[in-house]
Amino acid sequence: MTTHPPGYVDDKDAVLKRLRRIEGQIRGLQRMVDEDTYCIDVLTQVSAATKALESVALTLLDQHLAHCVHDAISQGGDDAQDKIAEASAAIARLVRS
Amino acid sequence: MTTHPPGYVDDKDAVLKRLRRIEGQIRGLQRMVDEDTYCIDVLTQVSAATKALESVALTLLDQHLAHCVHDAISQGGDDAQDKIAEASAAIARLVRS
Amino acid sequence: MTTHPPGYVDDKDAVLKRLRRIEGQIRGLQRMVDEDTYCIDVLTQVSAATKALESVALTLLDQHLAHCVHDAISQGGDDAQDKIAEASAAIARLVRS
Amino acid sequence: MTTHPPGYVDDKDAVLKRLRRIEGQIRGLQRMVDEDTYCIDVLTQVSAATKALESVALTLLDQHLAHCVHDAISQGGDDAQDKIAEASAAIARLVRS
Repeated sequence: MTTHPPGYVDDKDAVLKRLRRIEGQIRGLQRMVDEDTYCIDVLTQVSAATKALESVALTLLDQHLAHCVHDAISQGGDDAQDKIAEASAAIARLVRS
Repeated sequence: MTTHPPGYVDDKDAVLKRLRRIEGQIRGLQRMVDEDTYCIDVLTQVSAATKALESVALTLLDQHLAHCVHDAISQGGDDAQDKIAEASAAIARLVRS
Repeated sequence: MTTHPPGYVDDKDAVLKRLRRIEGQIRGLQRMVDEDTYCIDVLTQVSAATKALESVALTLLDQHLAHCVHDAISQGGDDAQDKIAEASAAIARLVRS
Repeated sequence: MTTHPPGYVDDKDAVLKRLRRIEGQIRGLQRMVDEDTYCIDVLTQVSAATKALESVALTLLDQHLAHCVHDAISQGGDDAQDKIAEASAAIARLVRS
């Protein structure tokens, strides 16, 4: 928990709503598998859930740049470069996941 | 529902177990967002859940090739080429998701 | 080199043409960097070249399934399962690259 | 061309060297295809070239954040939010390529 509110704080309800929907997609996948649904149809839903997760990540990243990284740079000091390096590492994980 | 059992039928319990774990990861993400957890920590978990989903997809795809596509080819006839085209389209969706 | 022609043999000219175009894109990127072109414009071209490479991979994979994997399964024997495992590993590398 | 040098200007030689290597990889792929090399071996090299391109993109993005976005924020004004939105769009293209 940081003292500053996270970058997504203004988007919190929308992010939570999207995560609840993804949770529903994952439960739907369990039903499909449980009912021996054809592999390709299950795969189509896995790709849809993966895209939805990616889109949440891109929103969080955008808000992080616009608030946390922005504020650290505006205030100057060493924290700015740390925040940028941290954001770049998160981007790399996202690109490679 | 197909008349033939899906390719993953022998792996069904393992696939369901992994999907339940991913469902847990998504609920964990909701708690993190709800508690204003730092963006980068949330992003790290989103990448982990995305990788877990991808890995389920690769298992389903492998089993689909080894059973559904394999059987369609063994039996000969037009269904084989349809099955291959269908598998290729699923691979493309996965690569681009 | 395998004794059988590769799955893409009928598509060879088209694949070579696409690879030559990608080579041109990579040389274009070098010119952009050499001329201090704005980062975002260079990044846009890198994403375009990455997508073009991915699309070549998907063509090669589709042709591999339709010919090499198909023939191994039609002929029966152990080679079929090896070919499927090999294709699945190639798909995993592609998804994770 | 921008009046400001691009973020990667200090890394220019290293970026150019990596792009030349990727150009060589693409030419190598053409030789493999020309010589009817087994599909899976060609696919392995395509994944390697894709990863190398991705890694160049991540370097360019990191340098863009550390310089262009950083400077726009430090100087304040509307340009900062434009730069962040532009970076987020480039990240989305990269994640989805």
